[in-house]
Amino acid sequence: MQQRGFLMTPGPTEISTRVLRAQLMPAIEPGDPSFIEVMDETAELLKEVFQTKKDVVFFPGSGRVTIESALASVIEPGDKVLALVNGVFGKWLKETAQRLGANVLELATEWRRGFDPSEVERKLEREKGIKLVGVVHNETSTGVRNPVAEIGKIVRDYGALYLVDTVSSLGGDDVRTDDWNIDLSCTGCYKCLNAPPGLSIVSVSEGAWKAMEKRRKPASTFSFDLYKWRQTWIPKERGGKLIWGYRRHPIEPAPHLTYALNEAIKEILEEGLHERFKRNALAGRAIRSGVHALGLELYPKEEEYASNTITGVMNPERIANSDILGIMRNKYGVVAGGGLEEIRGKVIRLAHMSVTSQPIYVLHTLWALGSALRELGLTLNIDEGLMCAREVFGSRGTAVSTK
Amino acid sequence: MQQRGFLMTPGPTEISTRVLRAQLMPAIEPGDPSFIEVMDETAELLKEVFQTKKDVVFFPGSGRVTIESALASVIEPGDKVLALVNGVFGKWLKETAQRLGANVLELATEWRRGFDPSEVERKLEREKGIKLVGVVHNETSTGVRNPVAEIGKIVRDYGALYLVDTVSSLGGDDVRTDDWNIDLSCTGCYKCLNAPPGLSIVSVSEGAWKAMEKRRKPASTFSFDLYKWRQTWIPKERGGKLIWGYRRHPIEPAPHLTYALNEAIKEILEEGLHERFKRNALAGRAIRSGVHALGLELYPKEEEYASNTITGVMNPERIANSDILGIMRNKYGVVAGGGLEEIRGKVIRLAHMSVTSQPIYVLHTLWALGSALRELGLTLNIDEGLMCAREVFGSRGTAVSTK
Repeated sequence: MQQRGFLMTPGPTEISTRVLRAQLMPAIEPGDPSFIEVMDETAELLKEVFQTKKDVVFFPGSGRVTIESALASVIEPGDKVLALVNGVFGKWLKETAQRLGANVLELATEWRRGFDPSEVERKLEREKGIKLVGVVHNETSTGVRNPVAEIGKIVRDYGALYLVDTVSSLGGDDVRTDDWNIDLSCTGCYKCLNAPPGLSIVSVSEGAWKAMEKRRKPASTFSFDLYKWRQTWIPKERGGKLIWGYRRHPIEPAPHLTYALNEAIKEILEEGLHERFKRNALAGRAIRSGVHALGLELYPKEEEYASNTITGVMNPERIANSDILGIMRNKYGVVAGGGLEEIRGKVIRLAHMSVTSQPIYVLHTLWALGSALRELGLTLNIDEGLMCAREVFGSRGTAVSTK
Repeated sequence: MQQRGFLMTPGPTEISTRVLRAQLMPAIEPGDPSFIEVMDETAELLKEVFQTKKDVVFFPGSGRVTIESALASVIEPGDKVLALVNGVFGKWLKETAQRLGANVLELATEWRRGFDPSEVERKLEREKGIKLVGVVHNETSTGVRNPVAEIGKIVRDYGALYLVDTVSSLGGDDVRTDDWNIDLSCTGCYKCLNAPPGLSIVSVSEGAWKAMEKRRKPASTFSFDLYKWRQTWIPKERGGKLIWGYRRHPIEPAPHLTYALNEAIKEILEEGLHERFKRNALAGRAIRSGVHALGLELYPKEEEYASNTITGVMNPERIANSDILGIMRNKYGVVAGGGLEEIRGKVIRLAHMSVTSQPIYVLHTLWALGSALRELGLTLNIDEGLMCAREVFGSRGTAVSTK
């Protein structure tokens, strides 16, 4: 019998049978009241995950598409955008804004650490008239986490819009959209939310809606102009009474992915949002402890920058990244991530943002990583690595949710 | 027992259980060779449906997103675009090009007829330097079909790129991408292809790739720049040998929708592409005959403009469109489409581009339409309508594929 592998990649993540099964629904007309109800319920469930009272909308896309739609909706050519770049996804955020014709300023920092909020403050002090600050919460490319809450306070003080890429954190780590002053929290459905890929999800603050309303020219995008959601979809109040408007979809929805996302969020909320954050964070601590004990180095230089959902491990020198990943996958059934672009071959990425943040998967992954490296000539104590990880889990057990 | 309704809407269309079931697959990493194989196989299957040897790519989106991505990829601000407008979707094509900063010229014609190719020729003769001509093959908003083949010859003579919105024709009516000189054939997965909504699909000619290559500045879109497919995804040949490149996805794919689309196309090709075209066209003739016999007027003024996949019926005066559709849906289980935007309330749209082009659905729909109108006060001979439609089907039987 072939071993069934599992995904330790930072998205897509494992999907439960319950969520897959939710897709088994007949075709439905998007204007059908029962489908509008599912759309509305899903938006309400998402608000709990976003920890927001703001609007949340979703549509066919991906994490990148979410960020592009948010930028395209508020930014006009020539607008000053500050992009904080300490990884591949920060770079892509910057490039997306550049393609849209923004005047993009970049604040870069070493990729192996998170931003120091005071650097951001100094930059905002020096440069006047920045309309939007964009940052990646959790650099999916490295496992470095940026201090989004602290940066949010500064951005508010300078009156800029605050866009946060929460693609690999939302639903898996604490993201307090409202408390942290996030105007546009941009995510996807296939990382911490564990649903089939294909949807963009974004929360939009009143300030962001205002910025869209005040545009001189319509957004360059017809399909992803978020303002249309405000105009034709989101129920409005007038004189204390709800005006439902047309409930017209600004973009053709994807009902089957919506059913699956709806079910996936229910699964998350049944476990408990904060229980889940704790589970993922604990797995992170266990993996980091195990990685240290194996004599390997983490990608983030300090513990304070370590993501709670993805652990980046420095690829040992003189051993090919692809060989390590190949053995882990083919012999041990563990699908891990490699490095992208500038850090191609330089990092091994292990995600703990789904069912796989449970001990059984974490311990097996450390065993697979250690064994692959030993097979490739490195001397290391695999048992030591497993023991240290197990110690972090303590007596928390290894129960796995039935799939 | 509640009557199970069926969708006569022009998309989404009915989806077979076989196709729905194809979504029941575990999460997969997009770089997994077995998934790349499914992507490649799906592209090859699509080429058969597009009747093309050109490249076909697909990604999360919708019909609108496809058109936007095609326009954004080849058009630079200021480029002259000729938009042929005789319906809501032609208008949206025009607006999409305008938002992208193109210098858009509009050629309009009465919405109740298709374009006369000689009008297009005169326009191209008068206006010099048009980079792209965009037209809707099948106006989903009206059931009017434009002479895309004839216009294609003219566009070629004038050296412009030819973009065709085939959202409601591809897979349901004859679309000869190569023979008709279509550079960018833009479609979705949820109309004639009968797959769950959420994907954009486009064929790209060598001329369109060249236009992207020669851009002065990169496209304003990061996610939907089709040129990335050429650069990082599509296998290339050099010296007669295939170079596979990185096979990197330009956009995060939607595997579950891809599995479903793959299965849906197999279902289509098993029936036979031309068998299917004939089935849909026959249903169109039967519906038109039935509608005439009911004493109603078709939206297209001449038979030659009548779509083979959607029939637009003029809404009888003094009867509310919503009342007709409501009775058809609630009493007879037939979900038909109404009018959009300018023609809101003025047209009843019946699609025959899926399982519903079979006699059982067509006859039931005519019965529902006639009965609803009679209930709303119109005098008409329902049996006459059914008889005329049945005569068109002749002895072709009423077999329905098992779902």
